[in-house]
Amino acid sequence: MQLSDIYAPIQEDLDKVGNEISLISQVSFSWLSKLLDHSLSGGGKGIRPALTLLSGKFYNYNIDTLLPMATAVELLHVATLVHDDAIDKSAVRRGKPTLYKVWGEDKAVLLGDYLFAKAGELTATTQNLRAIKLFAQTLGTISTGELAQAFSAFNLEQTNEQYIQRIAHKTAALFILATESGSVLSEAPEESIKILNEYGYNLGIAFQIVDDVLDFVGTEEELGKPTGSDLAQGTFTLPAIFLLERFPEDNPVKKIFQHEDKERNIKLAIERVRNSSIIEECYQIASDYCAKACHNLNLLPDNASRQALIQLANYVVSRKR
Amino acid sequence: MQLSDIYAPIQEDLDKVGNEISLISQVSFSWLSKLLDHSLSGGGKGIRPALTLLSGKFYNYNIDTLLPMATAVELLHVATLVHDDAIDKSAVRRGKPTLYKVWGEDKAVLLGDYLFAKAGELTATTQNLRAIKLFAQTLGTISTGELAQAFSAFNLEQTNEQYIQRIAHKTAALFILATESGSVLSEAPEESIKILNEYGYNLGIAFQIVDDVLDFVGTEEELGKPTGSDLAQGTFTLPAIFLLERFPEDNPVKKIFQHEDKERNIKLAIERVRNSSIIEECYQIASDYCAKACHNLNLLPDNASRQALIQLANYVVSRKR
Repeated sequence: MQLSDIYAPIQEDLDKVGNEISLISQVSFSWLSKLLDHSLSGGGKGIRPALTLLSGKFYNYNIDTLLPMATAVELLHVATLVHDDAIDKSAVRRGKPTLYKVWGEDKAVLLGDYLFAKAGELTATTQNLRAIKLFAQTLGTISTGELAQAFSAFNLEQTNEQYIQRIAHKTAALFILATESGSVLSEAPEESIKILNEYGYNLGIAFQIVDDVLDFVGTEEELGKPTGSDLAQGTFTLPAIFLLERFPEDNPVKKIFQHEDKERNIKLAIERVRNSSIIEECYQIASDYCAKACHNLNLLPDNASRQALIQLANYVVSRKR
Repeated sequence: MQLSDIYAPIQEDLDKVGNEISLISQVSFSWLSKLLDHSLSGGGKGIRPALTLLSGKFYNYNIDTLLPMATAVELLHVATLVHDDAIDKSAVRRGKPTLYKVWGEDKAVLLGDYLFAKAGELTATTQNLRAIKLFAQTLGTISTGELAQAFSAFNLEQTNEQYIQRIAHKTAALFILATESGSVLSEAPEESIKILNEYGYNLGIAFQIVDDVLDFVGTEEELGKPTGSDLAQGTFTLPAIFLLERFPEDNPVKKIFQHEDKERNIKLAIERVRNSSIIEECYQIASDYCAKACHNLNLLPDNASRQALIQLANYVVSRKR
């Protein structure tokens, strides 16, 4: 199933999010405008703002607050990507040079800050204190997850539980913001907010596990960046954890993390993971999270958006990019 | 006059801000705790949170909202410094190694993000939508100012007006947030909010002009960082603008910006500025802004805080660090 089919119940409003984002670039300083254009015309999949809109569809759907919130969620996402690329010194994302690569580290850091601010401003326009608080907390959680990743780079002493905690912070938190804010702004009852919060958490974990798998099995064209980027940056993801468990001796991951002939060992690690059942196992774990995500959705009102959330969960574990 | 004397009307609550900031470092991840300790135990002058508290003293002083707001203002300040040092690759601030220097660029960027988030969370606890909106806008304005500075680095084609606009964004905006939020949270009438907003703007401009002068006349010990740092980073400040106006030919600033024998020319530029009336002129301009800052304060209720704001304006143009 295509994303465009899944988005059908909210496509019209998702297009409005796109328009709002285009408006952000229209500022009087031409140098700022260029940076904004570069970072905002990336052609993301729009999963996060779609989640906000879909989650808002079960009670009082109010586009006046859901539109700025969905836009804020997407801007927060872009802001963290801009900072990530600066930190990781990544040259390419989504098949084009990163802001960092074109404009340098200083501009990337400051533009990320600017985007945080715009996202915060948009969230404030909802005038919903709970959504505002959740937004600020989410930025803190994401930063904590990214810091955890930075501190654990090139460190093999990491458990599966630490991995899940890290991706819960760095990825699932934003999915939770997306779904929970949508439900809060539509005045959903607490039980429903909880269901959509849990959906966001589990979907986010599944999404990141698949992301980490794609770093091994995707092509550069599909990924829009080199295969094996995580290994190159010393990020110990689930497939790498499993590979090390299976081959504790003479393991290419070990060598990469000890900075031994990185290029060759990255190729070797990818090959070994591809030729094992690790990929399948990771997809199984991601599928389990997606099942958990959907488990309680049937307690929400039955409508096209509920169906779309289930389809989105299926999409997340079958996507190629 | 000492800052501690000026702070007398709000010293007790300013100490509470210090306590709140210490609490921020108490987190369960020890690596995060270390970074927070490093960045938050800097021994700043506390001017910005003091401004929030003082500005809150004219109507309904409510420490329950002013305390988180003043703390947020200080955290936002620290966050921007942490990012600035990462961007400028500054090794020393306030006489000690920067977070960037000790922990690296990636940690500095992410910790700054974390501090933005904490500041945002604290602002949200005020439950005051106007203060929340102002907070988000301020982060956007500061980032714009910093970006303007980054884009104009090593560029001699800058007017006094552009300089004032830049420092209005990068510095005065935070002073405005400090004073305006204090007045908004104390339910001041609009005329009074406007007066305190203008005080914040003018004081902020004066503060930055003096900062830029101190970069020429201060000692490394007083500044807590090397003299001439702005020139080294290609930041065209008011004393440098005046020096170039006076000696359009054979000017050391020109050579620095063309990366010609930087060390020697920085020394030369400092010497020439010190041996001219430029310092005096800059202080005069700063004093004019301080006079403007205080001009309408007499329309506020007469109390010890009003006196303190006047004393603070005098302090700003006489400070050595």
